[in-house]
Amino acid sequence: MEKAEIGLIGLGTMGSNLALNIAEHGHHIAVFNRTRSRTDAFVESAGSLKDSIVPCYSLEELAAAIRPPRPIIIMVLAGKPVDEQIAALRGVLSNNDIVIDAGNANFRDTMRRFSELSGSGLTFIGMGVSGGEEGARHGPSIMVGGTEDSWKRVEKVLTAISAKFKDEPCAAWLGTDGAGHFVKTIHNGIEYADMQMIAEIYGILRDGLGMGPKEIGKVFDGWNKGRLNSYLIEITAKVLAADDPKTGKPVVDIILDRAGQKGTGKWSVIEAQQLGIPATAIEAAVAARVLSSIKDERQAAEKAYGNIGVAKISGDKAALLKDLELALFAGKIAAYAQGFAVMSGASKEFNWNLPMPTIAKIWRAGCIIRSQMLDTMAEAFGAGGASTNLLMAPAFITMMKEAHPSLRRIVARASEVGSPVPALSSALAYFDSYRQGRGTSNLIQAQRDFFGAHGFERIGEQGAFHGPWGSGAGG
Amino acid sequence: MEKAEIGLIGLGTMGSNLALNIAEHGHHIAVFNRTRSRTDAFVESAGSLKDSIVPCYSLEELAAAIRPPRPIIIMVLAGKPVDEQIAALRGVLSNNDIVIDAGNANFRDTMRRFSELSGSGLTFIGMGVSGGEEGARHGPSIMVGGTEDSWKRVEKVLTAISAKFKDEPCAAWLGTDGAGHFVKTIHNGIEYADMQMIAEIYGILRDGLGMGPKEIGKVFDGWNKGRLNSYLIEITAKVLAADDPKTGKPVVDIILDRAGQKGTGKWSVIEAQQLGIPATAIEAAVAARVLSSIKDERQAAEKAYGNIGVAKISGDKAALLKDLELALFAGKIAAYAQGFAVMSGASKEFNWNLPMPTIAKIWRAGCIIRSQMLDTMAEAFGAGGASTNLLMAPAFITMMKEAHPSLRRIVARASEVGSPVPALSSALAYFDSYRQGRGTSNLIQAQRDFFGAHGFERIGEQGAFHGPWGSGAGG
Repeated sequence: MEKAEIGLIGLGTMGSNLALNIAEHGHHIAVFNRTRSRTDAFVESAGSLKDSIVPCYSLEELAAAIRPPRPIIIMVLAGKPVDEQIAALRGVLSNNDIVIDAGNANFRDTMRRFSELSGSGLTFIGMGVSGGEEGARHGPSIMVGGTEDSWKRVEKVLTAISAKFKDEPCAAWLGTDGAGHFVKTIHNGIEYADMQMIAEIYGILRDGLGMGPKEIGKVFDGWNKGRLNSYLIEITAKVLAADDPKTGKPVVDIILDRAGQKGTGKWSVIEAQQLGIPATAIEAAVAARVLSSIKDERQAAEKAYGNIGVAKISGDKAALLKDLELALFAGKIAAYAQGFAVMSGASKEFNWNLPMPTIAKIWRAGCIIRSQMLDTMAEAFGAGGASTNLLMAPAFITMMKEAHPSLRRIVARASEVGSPVPALSSALAYFDSYRQGRGTSNLIQAQRDFFGAHGFERIGEQGAFHGPWGSGAGG
Repeated sequence: MEKAEIGLIGLGTMGSNLALNIAEHGHHIAVFNRTRSRTDAFVESAGSLKDSIVPCYSLEELAAAIRPPRPIIIMVLAGKPVDEQIAALRGVLSNNDIVIDAGNANFRDTMRRFSELSGSGLTFIGMGVSGGEEGARHGPSIMVGGTEDSWKRVEKVLTAISAKFKDEPCAAWLGTDGAGHFVKTIHNGIEYADMQMIAEIYGILRDGLGMGPKEIGKVFDGWNKGRLNSYLIEITAKVLAADDPKTGKPVVDIILDRAGQKGTGKWSVIEAQQLGIPATAIEAAVAARVLSSIKDERQAAEKAYGNIGVAKISGDKAALLKDLELALFAGKIAAYAQGFAVMSGASKEFNWNLPMPTIAKIWRAGCIIRSQMLDTMAEAFGAGGASTNLLMAPAFITMMKEAHPSLRRIVARASEVGSPVPALSSALAYFDSYRQGRGTSNLIQAQRDFFGAHGFERIGEQGAFHGPWGSGAGG
């Protein structure tokens, strides 16, 4: 058998699927897993793809099976296992080989690893992969960080296995060192906001309108045919339609309302804070998952505040459904505006020169947040109109002008009846603050100067000034 | 002259005022500043307190002037200057001397310094001081972190110079190492939320009701006599009443709406995220300051979205003003609930065993967020009713039950007319999410299981389950 073009370490679900995807695209691949039996089981399950796969039972064997310079994908648990794997590989690899971390690494770890390996002869790539198991198998969205040269050496195989949007591959080089993993982190942060907003709309339909899962599923199914068309809306319709085989009840009704999280949402928020860029819709989504996890506390609070509940929303149902659709649409735009703004800030901070149009393009297929809207975003960024903020792109100004009244009405109705809308209301507040030429922080500056002599700027004048506060001021 | 009881390094405004405060309370104090002239000017300005002050012109002189074991307060710029000062002091101090950092340190630096000095013979205290210049001079709120033993050695002087609430000193030992600086950070985070909510209410009065600064000032002045009674409401009334001597216009109208920040708000949010505790009202306040700073972008956006503006709010004005007062009250409670929850999480994480009733007590006077409500909080925490969350204390349940309908109406009206209420709406969403026994994250769990096979919990059953998603799942 001829030498493999690429190697892969870690045959968990994601690693196995990625390896099969590579093999299916005609690339010989050498694979290794810590436990021999898993390697054997994997090859056994590969069917007709078996001929393109070289099972290896040691790192030495793996290195020997790949044609140098060797690209080797690591798909192991993020964190220490990645460092250990890299250390072990250093003993068997040679100059110009490329180590590709395809796990969900924190981009700061990726930057550290990149710098640790610089000068070692090995090249390091941090690669974000989105699309879940199915994406890994049949076409994920691939976000690559590393040197441009190293990208060129793996571009062919990565574009081959990636998802395609109208024949364009959803794989791209985004910048040096941590760029790929950073963009993947923000992708996940946006995914948090997207899912939370959907959950908030579901809550209004369920509690404010008293609709059942099946009926709500049909609403989402209808929306999926319109401007909200996206993978997340599609699967929302599907999960709402599904019944639990055991009880016959709708599945969502037997699922405990306690959501998990794996850290990328939190990382997005922390990095946004470090950069000083508002990401309030993502923050609201992370907070909502945390609050969901303290179920016992919530139940005790419900008892204590019991008679509040969620009041029913009255009025024209068709108009309300239209408002809900547009509210979700507007909220989503604001959340994406925040996500892209955070990437833009990071791009400057870390000198990545992140290509925003490309990021929007490679998110159009393969990844969890893929949607019709991302195509419009790709166009907007491509035309340069979104370079300050997505909310300033002409197409999005038009869309927001149409949709913001609905977002207002829905946040207002939900606030009144008691259906929590943390992400949607954050999105509205962001939009309203962003478009307000004269805000209210003149008052905050006056307060700060009063108690702390921090000084303020005067309108139309340079310099720092103090107010005529007299005695009693100074906190 | 007899030896001084305490020393102080750094005669900026805060340091000078603290030194005068100490001298005024009958304690001999030795002072040192890098520049000789500032030391001389300080002593010159001390008037009759001069006799209690020993000016020193070197660290050796400072050490010699204080009776061992020496407590020495450092009041220099946070960050590297503190480390440099400590390093310099190590050469002149002796066993059992206490170095007290009274600046606005990040508590993680304080923990590091504490650990670096452990075993050196010197003791380290990280001390949060709130109250601005005036507080430092006449009675600040003092939050101490360090060993209990070191606290006992400085307790007398610190309680003497601190603010008093009905004769109770607003100074306390809160826990080891970074406890004091952490609590000060969260104090500031809460201060951000408090100020932002006031600014949001001001915005509604200004833009939604078309009221002028003087009229708004009178409203706040009236509120200061009721349940909102607090330092921040008091000074809001004052700054709104003040005129600019140069133009004769109300000062707030000539101040640029671009707010500064010094990092403690951001630190609060980052630590809340690290701990996994929602602090969305503080996050909203930090984001609002960031958005205020991009004035040019906002002006461009206003032009692009120009015809939206803020619509006028109609209806019974007296009822609306009552709603605004109660909305601010309810929003404030939720923000404090978040702040205390973050402290509670940190207390566990860092083994501080933070005394919540004491924290509420020492915030009742001296500090920027001092208020009548903090006395009620001190009682609630003292009675144990707020140990899970402030929102669960009987007194606050009663208050929230009365006030939440107003918060709803105000968030709804402001959302409708376009007056941004990021912090108030976050507070409402937090309250509504917290008191909801059955939330909506069952849908999020269904989605996560659909695309990532993350599994979900079933109501009333142990274990992880998967949905009957069939083909097409695994996204």
